[in-house]
Amino acid sequence: MNDVFRLPEIEESLSNFDVIEIIEEGFVAYSQGKVVVPPVGEMIFESPPGDAHIKYGFIQGDEYFVIKIATGFYENARLGISTSNGLMLVFSQKTGQLVCALLDEGRLTDIRTAAAGAVAAKHLAPSDVERIGILGAGIQGRLQLKYLASVTPCKSAMVWGINAEELEAYALETRRLGYDVRTTLDAQEVPACCNLIVTATPSKNPLLMADWIRPGTHITAMGSDTHDKIELDPQILAQADMVVADSISQSKTRGEIFRATQAGAIGEQDVIELGAVIQDPSLRRQNDQQITVADLTGVAVQDIQISKAVYESLVSKGSR
Amino acid sequence: MNDVFRLPEIEESLSNFDVIEIIEEGFVAYSQGKVVVPPVGEMIFESPPGDAHIKYGFIQGDEYFVIKIATGFYENARLGISTSNGLMLVFSQKTGQLVCALLDEGRLTDIRTAAAGAVAAKHLAPSDVERIGILGAGIQGRLQLKYLASVTPCKSAMVWGINAEELEAYALETRRLGYDVRTTLDAQEVPACCNLIVTATPSKNPLLMADWIRPGTHITAMGSDTHDKIELDPQILAQADMVVADSISQSKTRGEIFRATQAGAIGEQDVIELGAVIQDPSLRRQNDQQITVADLTGVAVQDIQISKAVYESLVSKGSR
Repeated sequence: MNDVFRLPEIEESLSNFDVIEIIEEGFVAYSQGKVVVPPVGEMIFESPPGDAHIKYGFIQGDEYFVIKIATGFYENARLGISTSNGLMLVFSQKTGQLVCALLDEGRLTDIRTAAAGAVAAKHLAPSDVERIGILGAGIQGRLQLKYLASVTPCKSAMVWGINAEELEAYALETRRLGYDVRTTLDAQEVPACCNLIVTATPSKNPLLMADWIRPGTHITAMGSDTHDKIELDPQILAQADMVVADSISQSKTRGEIFRATQAGAIGEQDVIELGAVIQDPSLRRQNDQQITVADLTGVAVQDIQISKAVYESLVSKGSR
Repeated sequence: MNDVFRLPEIEESLSNFDVIEIIEEGFVAYSQGKVVVPPVGEMIFESPPGDAHIKYGFIQGDEYFVIKIATGFYENARLGISTSNGLMLVFSQKTGQLVCALLDEGRLTDIRTAAAGAVAAKHLAPSDVERIGILGAGIQGRLQLKYLASVTPCKSAMVWGINAEELEAYALETRRLGYDVRTTLDAQEVPACCNLIVTATPSKNPLLMADWIRPGTHITAMGSDTHDKIELDPQILAQADMVVADSISQSKTRGEIFRATQAGAIGEQDVIELGAVIQDPSLRRQNDQQITVADLTGVAVQDIQISKAVYESLVSKGSR
């Protein structure tokens, strides 16, 4: 009655659809109120440090509902295994039966997260991206650059990290994607020469400070997805011309917007939702001098969209 | 890196351990505060009516954490497919990696729920069970009777349901387990001749009324696991000498205790937890005239215990 798919065939299926397009559609449906997304389930582990998130929901009237589990155990790198893991489960909204288990080892979460970064940049980046700055030289930092290629012609990048070796590996790999990549161990260098910046770290302290940010910069912060992770000085959000959340409701308990609101730097009324920005061009940046911030905490609708697309692609290809 | 097990081998593994014993141990660990159980995740569907519950958690310092999904779609019976479904996922608490997926189609949830009924009866039933009453002739109603055989010698039962055909099928099947089973379409008949009663229905209206309950009766209510399901007149809880919850925290938002508290029939201080009753015999019924009620909403520790036991049994048998 159900199918179990593993990583190789899931990876292969990704070439059969436009992931940025389906994620964009997902954000629109979400902001239109068509998607039921209960609060994120969460477990936090201390020794070794790690977390597990359960994101789940459904588009009303759709055929499926989806439950996604993603784990992050940052010390796994020492063991030579991936820091992120997980799986996605697709169920029938008509019978409750499991339709398929996508044992993607967290890959689809990585991909849908990177695609959300591309969606945010597509609608919020300045018209002329001079250089792309990436904070975090891990899996997500690499994927962000890969998916940004679909939305900006800029092939110049700078990557910041805390480990020189990891930075070299990053530069080598992303050069193969056609990027000219400089590396740095000094985070302040990034906003000095980049006007499209993506933060993709598990940091618990701000990495970028408000007075480093030049006019005309867009920042997508995607690392923080809990109440205790933070990548941006709350004053960056205070001074931004626009603050965009993937989910306003999730931003009440996690991520940069939560932290900046807690710090009194911004108020709830200062935040608009990504799906609304996609639908209404008048909500985007008004000129190339504005500073914009997108805070992505990851929404179940992304998981719904990508797992449905993968499943339908796998089934229509008759791989089973 | 992970194993996927399906129903036949999972069913087979159940003979390798004592499920009532591990569920009992789980309740004790839970009431001792050793188990982290975040709030239950829930999705409610309207057309067709159904629900999905996500229960998850971990025993502190243990090797695993567990996420369980259970669905209930009561109109499935018309389609000839099981009304309950789901799966259990076991992850490493050290790396976040998926250890195994138990594609049990909801069977392990059914079993651990039935085992919890046996645990409640073991510690709360009157010393001489004259007849067992079961409300609900579905899967859970059958399993309750099956697992009660381990904790009481009584082989006389009465089953109530709303469909005569289903009742006949129930009687036929449970006679094979050695029970002498009478059937009834009148719920009031059950408390008139049974002093150990289990309610196992998805009812949204009370099925048993307070003035029907005789002294010396124990009732385990296991059907209600949402805020809107209810099987017992709140006055039954008000007049009971003991009200026991599997989880006091879950009883604040779902189940009979939630409903009776909402109705003002009982207060939070009137409720004790099953794990505490198991540990301390002085908390059990004082005599065979008392009325006791156990309200079981289903706790993730049951899922943790059964999925670990199944996995370890499957692995030690070298079935993979």
